Amino acid sequence: MNLNIVLYQPEIPQNTGNIARTCVLTNSTLHLIKPLGFSLDEKHLKRAGLDYWKDLKLEIYESYEEFMEINKDKRMFLASTHAKEIYSDVKFKQGDFIMFGRESCGVPDNVHNDIQGIRTPMLETSTRSLNLSNTVAIVAYEALRQIGFPGMK
Amino acid sequence: MNLNIVLYQPEIPQNTGNIARTCVLTNSTLHLIKPLGFSLDEKHLKRAGLDYWKDLKLEIYESYEEFMEINKDKRMFLASTHAKEIYSDVKFKQGDFIMFGRESCGVPDNVHNDIQGIRTPMLETSTRSLNLSNTVAIVAYEALRQIGFPGMK
Repeated sequence: MNLNIVLYQPEIPQNTGNIARTCVLTNSTLHLIKPLGFSLDEKHLKRAGLDYWKDLKLEIYESYEEFMEINKDKRMFLASTHAKEIYSDVKFKQGDFIMFGRESCGVPDNVHNDIQGIRTPMLETSTRSLNLSNTVAIVAYEALRQIGFPGMK
Repeated sequence: MNLNIVLYQPEIPQNTGNIARTCVLTNSTLHLIKPLGFSLDEKHLKRAGLDYWKDLKLEIYESYEEFMEINKDKRMFLASTHAKEIYSDVKFKQGDFIMFGRESCGVPDNVHNDIQGIRTPMLETSTRSLNLSNTVAIVAYEALRQIGFPGMK
């Protein structure tokens, strides 16, 4: 297993669908922290065309507290537009956890305090930032590049 | 201007929307080669919530031939699952053109013959590949990382 991608209360099903696809194709585990902005029941997944969902390594948590209790000893990063360190300056390791906040408003202050932040550089022209699934892809592939794309061709 | 992102006959409006956002936020120009699978008229853009479209540097071409005629002297790469070279092994330069094929079926053979291919590594478990806007984000940010994220914070 290469990486652990963590979504904190994701809101938009298309983003989580694209991120799940990235996880399957990179041998990474997807961790979802509830509440989610969509349903994970089989009928909804089928309708959304997520045919790769069955190949996904998926962990679901009832709360941030439960996630932290289970994973408290893990090496963890938080993608955040407020962070000082640039994502590509980090030296990633296989098995690292990388957390991404809600599409609308990121993560609350206590999460910022708990986890080391990293950010993707952008032009400061806009209040908008990158699409969530794009940010995950960028950071995950930088980590995968650094660790040599294990098992990938 | 940092990069030139070229979409060959893109089909899915949400992908082009996300890619346009990536272009705006990275000071890159978006080049669209017709036919497109969606409308670019103002009413449709407004309905899709593309409030950043006005900030986009956009070039539109009636055909691949027109695109090549205008840009024949440019340094160009083609993202392709068939390519041998891995995207992160390329040494990118500011102003490079990077082309991405249709969501359903990439680009025809003559385009493969014209342009040097690069690929993003993936697990070989699935017939699916990465979402188009994710692939653009991954390759663009690797190029931007190499050239030092000019003008980005």
